[in-house]
Amino acid sequence: MNDYIEKNKERFIEELKALLRVPSVSADPAFKQDVLKMAELTKKALLDAGADMAELCDTPGYPIVYAEKIIDPSKPTVLVYGHYDVQPADPLELWDSPPFEPVLKEGKIYARGAADDKGQVYMHVKAFEMMMRTDSLPCNVKFMIEGEEEVGSKGLSWFVPRNKEKLKSDVILISDTSIIADDIPSITTGLRGLSYVQVEVTGPKRDLHSGIYGGAVANPINILCDMISDLIDRDGQITIPGFYDDVANLSAEERTEMNKAPFSLDDYKKELDVKAVKGEKGYTTIERASIRPTLDVNGIWGGYIGEGAKTVLPAKAFAKISMRLVPNQESEKITKLFQEYFESAAPDYVTVKVYPHHGGEAVVTAIDSKAYKAASKAMETTFGKKPIPTRGGGSIPIVALFKKELGLDSILMGFGLDSDDIHSPNESYGIFNYLKGIETIAHFFKNFAE
Amino acid sequence: MNDYIEKNKERFIEELKALLRVPSVSADPAFKQDVLKMAELTKKALLDAGADMAELCDTPGYPIVYAEKIIDPSKPTVLVYGHYDVQPADPLELWDSPPFEPVLKEGKIYARGAADDKGQVYMHVKAFEMMMRTDSLPCNVKFMIEGEEEVGSKGLSWFVPRNKEKLKSDVILISDTSIIADDIPSITTGLRGLSYVQVEVTGPKRDLHSGIYGGAVANPINILCDMISDLIDRDGQITIPGFYDDVANLSAEERTEMNKAPFSLDDYKKELDVKAVKGEKGYTTIERASIRPTLDVNGIWGGYIGEGAKTVLPAKAFAKISMRLVPNQESEKITKLFQEYFESAAPDYVTVKVYPHHGGEAVVTAIDSKAYKAASKAMETTFGKKPIPTRGGGSIPIVALFKKELGLDSILMGFGLDSDDIHSPNESYGIFNYLKGIETIAHFFKNFAE
Repeated sequence: MNDYIEKNKERFIEELKALLRVPSVSADPAFKQDVLKMAELTKKALLDAGADMAELCDTPGYPIVYAEKIIDPSKPTVLVYGHYDVQPADPLELWDSPPFEPVLKEGKIYARGAADDKGQVYMHVKAFEMMMRTDSLPCNVKFMIEGEEEVGSKGLSWFVPRNKEKLKSDVILISDTSIIADDIPSITTGLRGLSYVQVEVTGPKRDLHSGIYGGAVANPINILCDMISDLIDRDGQITIPGFYDDVANLSAEERTEMNKAPFSLDDYKKELDVKAVKGEKGYTTIERASIRPTLDVNGIWGGYIGEGAKTVLPAKAFAKISMRLVPNQESEKITKLFQEYFESAAPDYVTVKVYPHHGGEAVVTAIDSKAYKAASKAMETTFGKKPIPTRGGGSIPIVALFKKELGLDSILMGFGLDSDDIHSPNESYGIFNYLKGIETIAHFFKNFAE
Repeated sequence: MNDYIEKNKERFIEELKALLRVPSVSADPAFKQDVLKMAELTKKALLDAGADMAELCDTPGYPIVYAEKIIDPSKPTVLVYGHYDVQPADPLELWDSPPFEPVLKEGKIYARGAADDKGQVYMHVKAFEMMMRTDSLPCNVKFMIEGEEEVGSKGLSWFVPRNKEKLKSDVILISDTSIIADDIPSITTGLRGLSYVQVEVTGPKRDLHSGIYGGAVANPINILCDMISDLIDRDGQITIPGFYDDVANLSAEERTEMNKAPFSLDDYKKELDVKAVKGEKGYTTIERASIRPTLDVNGIWGGYIGEGAKTVLPAKAFAKISMRLVPNQESEKITKLFQEYFESAAPDYVTVKVYPHHGGEAVVTAIDSKAYKAASKAMETTFGKKPIPTRGGGSIPIVALFKKELGLDSILMGFGLDSDDIHSPNESYGIFNYLKGIETIAHFFKNFAE
């Protein structure tokens, strides 16, 4: 670790903890003031670190925090992207400590947003501060930090095409992904897309007594279960007609290469406490989680879910369903295929509505670009090992947007771990990863400017 | 209507409204004080009506309200059973007026418990009052009103075998069922039993990010849907091995007779606003709702069910499932069959637990008994039409208990309508039915004592 980080690390941690105390949950309107407060704090942090200017840019949703430091227009420019919003914290009862009261434990900082993405955004702010204070910023830098990543980036999709000049740069640098392990650095070179919908099954017009009507009237919960069950066949394949039409299949060589990444199925099962894994027939766990599309129910509800028993045959049942997409599948097309199929699959004793939520496209990034090489070399310097290019299973839909609107490639140099429990109770981020990230980002700037 | 009812009907309605204001929800411990208050009010109402004595009898759960009026030990004794607890009121947002603020509208009183069972219990209290004030009580009467009918009558099951002497009587009279229509009186001569369970499917030990793990790890919600879907086959038959073994099948004659009851499938569908009905192949809607066993999901939940989207692959998914049983099926045996089958059907990538909740046995009552004839004649007098004997779909498990422990038959002379929306939002009870019930009950006593 370099001197500046060593000397300031306690302050870096305390500053991050202060930001983690703000419950900037974009999905829930109840947190609106906190999301806006988080935007203000992000702007202030960038100004304090040394930005020439920082501002909140209006969008139809939450504002974009934009900041820049232009040292010389003839030098390259790095555009740093991240997000200041976080996932909802529930189920709250499963947290060991309150989600918005960060605690340090066994070298990790526990809080909602610790890894996704406040901790990873703040590495960039602190790397920028370090380069400013040590007079070593080698190129221009712009920051674009949004507040709606967890709910579909609608504001950003509106903002980017309207601010092409302002956002002009040479590469986009994003830390919102993971490395394989603290001693196995990696760079994400592919991400899955997303199609997210909500479905509603309606049976009788009111809740009924299951004794009087049970057996004679279709129960929307049972029907919803039937319909969800029918979406995936015995081989783990999704049954929506046309779903796989555009899937980019990897060559045998590429698949062999991909499966060489360090991975132990036993450790994986042990860590999750499952006796067996389940997925599409003919693919390994690594492949199922990265190069193959999926369908998961993210939430389901209907009928009586309180204490005790209620013998109700409910009028409605609901589910939130998302599909992870792979290169060449288009989010909008898949959403439409799902909607058409699911609505038409409804038997005539219920009505089914599908409400599209949000989506994003899958991406694959080049590993022979100047930017990728700069990132790879930076990681090799700080970790002592060349990073492995990996395909991630999650979605950062804005990467496809940046390519389309700005013509720019993104470098997905994240420092989290899969065990950080992002989107889960007890999310955490390692102090090792946080400080290593700050150090590595500075190296990236140096390498990229050369 | 007789003079006494005519003169006192406004007061009868106001007194019932006062009782409907008490949210005596037995399923939810939050309402404990209200349930206890309701027991006290019921006791007081019986004393006010003219009981010799009334008391709250302790049980392991909520107390039983017991009261009696013995005019002559050599005369017959009627034991009136009912319950003072009510179903939970949620979903609250679907009520047109608050569930515990009764309102009169178009000849009906709207409130949770209006028909099930406060309104129907109070008919007995007021019929008793009328007979006392008009010096016309022709036989002895005992009241046993419990507070746990909606949650399995555990206290009653404990109380009855311990108080056989106290409960000694000649017949049990219960008003907790419906008539076919206001101009088509009927008496329930059969009831389905019940087996109610809660199931829990556990996958990974914590909630996961569906992008990182989706497709590679079994999703407990999807698996729960598969397992629920597998419980009923394409012909509407329940797939649990042995489930139908003990089902008493009706003769072709009995089925023909049963299907002569006035019923319009078109009206039924229209009233429920469904395009088609669904049920077991080879049976009519009347049969499916009464003489055939069923399986319904009464509640389901798992994952993120709040506003917006969360891309979670949850650790657990849950459902409440109930089966309605028919004569000769035993509740305990069926619960065990379900448990064994559902737990063993769990694929090895999840663990499944089944928690038995409560149950009760199906019953069929004789239509040639003195008590049935007294009830039939009473209805014929007050409605001007002989009542039709019908098999009900719901469960009053204590009817089987009374037979077993006390050796007594029950007469199920209820005055509700299927459209009363018991167990649903906007439960109501017709003033016509309430007053007609009071009048008919007095006639029953007269006929039975003759």
